[in-house]
Amino acid sequence: MEEKVLVIGHKNPDTDSICSALAYAHLKKELGSNAEAVRLGTPNKETEYALDYFKVEAPRFIERVEDDVKEVALVDHNEFPQSVDNIRDVHIAEVIDHHRIANFETSAPLYFRVEPVGCTATILNKMYKENDVKIPSHIAGLMVSAIISDSLLFKSPTCTEQDVEAAKELAEIANVDLNTYGLEMLKAGTNLQDKSMDELLANDAKVFDMHGENVEVNQINAVDIDEVYEKQEAFEKAIEAYVEEKGLSLYLLVVTDILNSNSDVLAIGKETQKVEKAFNVTLDNNRAMLTGVVSRKKQIVPPLTDAFKA
Amino acid sequence: MEEKVLVIGHKNPDTDSICSALAYAHLKKELGSNAEAVRLGTPNKETEYALDYFKVEAPRFIERVEDDVKEVALVDHNEFPQSVDNIRDVHIAEVIDHHRIANFETSAPLYFRVEPVGCTATILNKMYKENDVKIPSHIAGLMVSAIISDSLLFKSPTCTEQDVEAAKELAEIANVDLNTYGLEMLKAGTNLQDKSMDELLANDAKVFDMHGENVEVNQINAVDIDEVYEKQEAFEKAIEAYVEEKGLSLYLLVVTDILNSNSDVLAIGKETQKVEKAFNVTLDNNRAMLTGVVSRKKQIVPPLTDAFKA
Repeated sequence: MEEKVLVIGHKNPDTDSICSALAYAHLKKELGSNAEAVRLGTPNKETEYALDYFKVEAPRFIERVEDDVKEVALVDHNEFPQSVDNIRDVHIAEVIDHHRIANFETSAPLYFRVEPVGCTATILNKMYKENDVKIPSHIAGLMVSAIISDSLLFKSPTCTEQDVEAAKELAEIANVDLNTYGLEMLKAGTNLQDKSMDELLANDAKVFDMHGENVEVNQINAVDIDEVYEKQEAFEKAIEAYVEEKGLSLYLLVVTDILNSNSDVLAIGKETQKVEKAFNVTLDNNRAMLTGVVSRKKQIVPPLTDAFKA
Repeated sequence: MEEKVLVIGHKNPDTDSICSALAYAHLKKELGSNAEAVRLGTPNKETEYALDYFKVEAPRFIERVEDDVKEVALVDHNEFPQSVDNIRDVHIAEVIDHHRIANFETSAPLYFRVEPVGCTATILNKMYKENDVKIPSHIAGLMVSAIISDSLLFKSPTCTEQDVEAAKELAEIANVDLNTYGLEMLKAGTNLQDKSMDELLANDAKVFDMHGENVEVNQINAVDIDEVYEKQEAFEKAIEAYVEEKGLSLYLLVVTDILNSNSDVLAIGKETQKVEKAFNVTLDNNRAMLTGVVSRKKQIVPPLTDAFKA
């Protein structure tokens, strides 16, 4: 048997990170590699819904890459702080991603494929075709779930024509109606009832190095923003303690109304004025409404990074 | 007319950087973009031979990206220190490369395609096919020249099956015999007669950030290593002054015997012991023979970077 290859999505995994890890591991296995999908955290409610629907087990959880692993493939991320803790000690052979490139470095060449599309699964859909491998129905289901999740059912400005086309193709293979299935899956993800404060804060949080400052941005999807902010005081206390513990310059909680495509953000930390500068808003009670903003990657991280630049 | 897009190869351009810039600009123009190939330095003798043979003008020289340029595509490099001086102020929309990834960062997603093949032109050959664009004979000639150059006529360990296949296809379109044309082109590049010391030292030099230390590695192809080292004393003086001026920790001159596939290196700077450590050799009169070593990318940079790590 060939040596082990792990396919790894990012920490605080979202649906794309879990499903694209599974989909890419499947493709690699079909091509003869001893690949296994793994995860760096607990699947969220939305992802659970998708896994249950298509009757697929979640990838195995790992805390670090084991010594007997020959190489790893990263999907849906490239920044080391978002990856497995011992990422600097492993051989990264491949990266398939759709995010900005930063905090990534290798000493040898590799296969690195980043495209400005809305979802990793859209790139994987091409790779299945390029390699002439048929996508099984349950894998297609996971892939279309990832696209629906990342594009908020095609409403996000990160969504491209390629994502829409791929989703249509995959929905047909998976035998689901895009709108019906998509809305059900997104709604499953907005259920915050049985989540602890710690779980909410880790939810979909990503750490970014913005010109030397550590900034964490967490996004929570909701159908009712007010319901989420009923807990604002508890959020603030928990975030303040977390910011202190992790030495963050800024923690930004982004609560996104998935039906109306707005985000109500809560900013905590010594650099909250960077949020005001980035989005030209004034924080009131630590919060601000960002109209039409739904994409962390395209509408939040770039202006916020620029605000830290000057 | 659509806004300007520049296709840029690295500083101290080699044949791949010049020819792939021309080949990718041509592809982009065919796809409707207002693209122009540019260069960041003087083409070397080998590249001149290829340009003359296929009757193509060298790309336009630029010192910095002009303000009216909308976006740039980098070919054959991704590290900012190897790119145009104002690279941090321009919009990088695409990268097509085959090197390690380091010292690269964007605030937004982009099309970033790095593959572990021997030459950028090999990736471009695929992209022409993917986009269903026919390669004109003179562009195919430039592309096959790039592959011959980077692979030292398929002798380098960086050379993959894909490079060999692409070169065969392109040689047919360009109507050249691979061996005859390839050897003539490589030999044209070994002619050091009319080069000044400054030209020799800038020849094919690249600067690498190795764990915080600035290291410059320059490669000169030769058919007779001894002939090159007739000038050893003059080299050393010039390099010492250069190391001082640029604040380098190490300058490594790699003189590669293209017929016998060995390299005789000359190391200058305060970190020369890193060369001994990386290659398990002892420098004698500042020099060491690295048997079977011909590839800077695959056989020199990775072990040298590792030597700086510990």
